[in-house]
Amino acid sequence: MKLEIWFEFASTYSYLSVSRIEELLNGTQIDLAWRPFLLGPIFRGRGLDTSPFIIDSIKGAYMWRDMERCCKKYGLPFVRPPIFPMNGLSAARIMTAALSETWSGDFARLVFAAQFGCGADISDEAVLRRVLEDCDVTPDEWFAKAKQSLTKSKLREATEQARTLGIFGAPSFLVGDELFWGDDRLEDAIALAHVL
Amino acid sequence: MKLEIWFEFASTYSYLSVSRIEELLNGTQIDLAWRPFLLGPIFRGRGLDTSPFIIDSIKGAYMWRDMERCCKKYGLPFVRPPIFPMNGLSAARIMTAALSETWSGDFARLVFAAQFGCGADISDEAVLRRVLEDCDVTPDEWFAKAKQSLTKSKLREATEQARTLGIFGAPSFLVGDELFWGDDRLEDAIALAHVL
Repeated sequence: MKLEIWFEFASTYSYLSVSRIEELLNGTQIDLAWRPFLLGPIFRGRGLDTSPFIIDSIKGAYMWRDMERCCKKYGLPFVRPPIFPMNGLSAARIMTAALSETWSGDFARLVFAAQFGCGADISDEAVLRRVLEDCDVTPDEWFAKAKQSLTKSKLREATEQARTLGIFGAPSFLVGDELFWGDDRLEDAIALAHVL
Repeated sequence: MKLEIWFEFASTYSYLSVSRIEELLNGTQIDLAWRPFLLGPIFRGRGLDTSPFIIDSIKGAYMWRDMERCCKKYGLPFVRPPIFPMNGLSAARIMTAALSETWSGDFARLVFAAQFGCGADISDEAVLRRVLEDCDVTPDEWFAKAKQSLTKSKLREATEQARTLGIFGAPSFLVGDELFWGDDRLEDAIALAHVL
């Protein structure tokens, strides 16, 4: 069965799921589909001009402490980045262009690790360049593909599809027609993908 | 170590934690403290005039499906009640008056089971009367205690304390000075209470 992970590069809890999912699926027959999209247009369509964690400072403060604890639990490095939410547009376009590449999962994990493990600014081309080099591909080639109008329109379509699916946050998981929201539901989504 | 469960009788996810917590703590040395409070004043202080699940219908629709799945996972009965959110004031006052009674946990579980397991209206005195009878106590005595000004002021103070603790939803768990939000964090809260 197929499991789709819908994620946004600026999303804190997406870091947890993107970092965990491949190991959890290792040895299973579940077919993983990476579905990068942009939360900004989804939030704006819901009347929010930024992350709910910025609008609601009490919930935001809780989220950062919760992230510290979750990263410790999962053995993931964590630093609170100096900017939140970061602009993940370039990363999302590269990921969109690279979806059929074997290294796309590595790219996603490394971008999140740079951001939430090291505090790096993922809108900085130099940061993405290092990640692409770590994936053993030519950065210039993938920056060029990211800027193609086909890539841009694919990402816009993915975001529109997320809205149609009723996705309102990230990460979300789709298994058949069941939608799960949040890193806390990753195991449940996998359990369903096993039996469907 | 002490673990405080802060809950609101109208809260869907509080049903999960209130139903699960005593079994999870069975055989441990953890001291459970029931902390009923009212979410209404907390929400109003945050500019919300009702449940976020009503204000945000997309998230609300997701929550009901998520509750169905969670109840199935935990082996809890579930029906979507005809009213949401219900008025849990009377139940919260009875619980506040009964906090030092051995049956207070039974009362909480039975009120939630009536609401989310059977769809009963927990603002209906007849429903609470049956729950009190199932706890083997005299309903009239506890309705009277619930209406005492000392009980009312204790519940108001608990709600004010919740706000001071940074609680913004239910269930929340307090272990030492660590606050956890949501049924998904119950196991983490218990794990911390084991080592503190």
